Amino acid sequence: MKTSIDCIPCFIRQTFDAVRMLTDDAGVLESVVRSVLSLISDMAFTDPPPLMGQAIHRLIRTACNDSDPYREVKQQSNRLALGLYPVLKSRIRNSAHPFETALRLSIAGNIIDFGTSSRVTDETVHSTIQACYHNRLNTTAVEQLQEEVRRASNILYLGDNAGEIVFDRLFIEELPREKVTYVVRGSPTINDATMADAREVGMTEIVSVRDNGTDIPGTHLEKCPESFTRLFNTADIIIAKGQGNYETLSDSKKNIFFLFTVKCAVIAYHAGCSIGESAIIRGGEKEAGVR
Amino acid sequence: MKTSIDCIPCFIRQTFDAVRMLTDDAGVLESVVRSVLSLISDMAFTDPPPLMGQAIHRLIRTACNDSDPYREVKQQSNRLALGLYPVLKSRIRNSAHPFETALRLSIAGNIIDFGTSSRVTDETVHSTIQACYHNRLNTTAVEQLQEEVRRASNILYLGDNAGEIVFDRLFIEELPREKVTYVVRGSPTINDATMADAREVGMTEIVSVRDNGTDIPGTHLEKCPESFTRLFNTADIIIAKGQGNYETLSDSKKNIFFLFTVKCAVIAYHAGCSIGESAIIRGGEKEAGVR
Repeated sequence: MKTSIDCIPCFIRQTFDAVRMLTDDAGVLESVVRSVLSLISDMAFTDPPPLMGQAIHRLIRTACNDSDPYREVKQQSNRLALGLYPVLKSRIRNSAHPFETALRLSIAGNIIDFGTSSRVTDETVHSTIQACYHNRLNTTAVEQLQEEVRRASNILYLGDNAGEIVFDRLFIEELPREKVTYVVRGSPTINDATMADAREVGMTEIVSVRDNGTDIPGTHLEKCPESFTRLFNTADIIIAKGQGNYETLSDSKKNIFFLFTVKCAVIAYHAGCSIGESAIIRGGEKEAGVR
Repeated sequence: MKTSIDCIPCFIRQTFDAVRMLTDDAGVLESVVRSVLSLISDMAFTDPPPLMGQAIHRLIRTACNDSDPYREVKQQSNRLALGLYPVLKSRIRNSAHPFETALRLSIAGNIIDFGTSSRVTDETVHSTIQACYHNRLNTTAVEQLQEEVRRASNILYLGDNAGEIVFDRLFIEELPREKVTYVVRGSPTINDATMADAREVGMTEIVSVRDNGTDIPGTHLEKCPESFTRLFNTADIIIAKGQGNYETLSDSKKNIFFLFTVKCAVIAYHAGCSIGESAIIRGGEKEAGVR
């Protein structure tokens, strides 16, 4: 999907957030904000929002001389989610529908998104989890996903954020693990999960983990290395977490199930959902695992 | 006061608001937003925020070919406030302290500010009025103002917004009217009151009304014509309504009483208040009407 003009206030907020995580120096903030405004004023809106995000966050990292402004935020999110893991695992085990419960939790974990919000408090995470068990959900799509997972030979699971990756682990533990490849970003961008997070939460111990070779907070195939696009193109089914993956892949013809918590008006409008909703959206052509 | 970096998101919101009042054309919005971003990226932050506001809203009016984007909003606000006038007038008449009650209402009327908010609903106005009677207020400053009003030979009252001007009228009716000159902006800018509003709400029938000769949403003396600065310099006391007048005159040495509802974090920090507070702040040197 294209970038909306309404993405701009969000990019600017992200700039304030990221710089203030690194410095109290008002001069640095002013200088970075000026550069970002100038960058946006001249940017192509035909690209999906994560491309703009990549350029903006590269600029911030370079100007502030820090390769990973969200380092601490990501570690906190992983710790929070790992602390919740045992009780959530038990909830799934005791559920009448473990697959659906784990899927709901995976969508709930997507609330840990510092691209769409300046702060994600522990209370927000807890209340999102509590709500997820009873949220309205497209159960037809859930059943389709479960059926396709059963039939697929290989499943590509595109992760999104740190912290959320623990919720992904819970869901992946309900999938045929040997078929799953989990994908992280190639290098730090916002609070998106990288290989370091996959190791930290033990994802590398349960499935094959690959990175997409980029610092784009989404999956923009044109910018990904061939090693990754081959993986993408040969997958029977793709589970894509988060708004950034939806924004970059919503036009793809592949057999994709997008799972995310709807967090902004632009996505709500594009996907025909409401803010706060647990979304499971089937993209691409209905290839239904026939490859 | 200088412009804060935190004013920028507000300027951008104003741009979206103003353009969307005039057109649904996404191309126009994108073009104006790009121009405003470019303008801000290069602007001097040493000026007070209303100077930036002037440049931005000039750009919007020119690009959209409309001399007064907030025309309808201002008329709605005037109608709402005129509808409230009789009951508020009666409340003041029956009050044990008519001066203070009218002053509280004048501050409450400052909530009608489309510079700080995209929407000001009737409910917001009603609830602000209900709260104003009991809000914490610097009563020492209220007494000082009342005493200085009594001693002054001429009082300059700098208005702020349409709608709010009706609340100013209620307050001015508790002042020695023959001493008061009421000031509006020289031409339309955001929802600030102009001579048209002064006529519409009957302000011109009760006091002398002058305009400040500019389209700045504040009172920036360097840009005002000499006819206005003479008026300003010879006033014994100045009552300055709203954040824009505070932002442009907070460094003045004149005997000024600033009256406003605190609506943003930048002003709250600068003035040592909290958002939502009814502020009466004495500026300048304590000349106390000795001129």
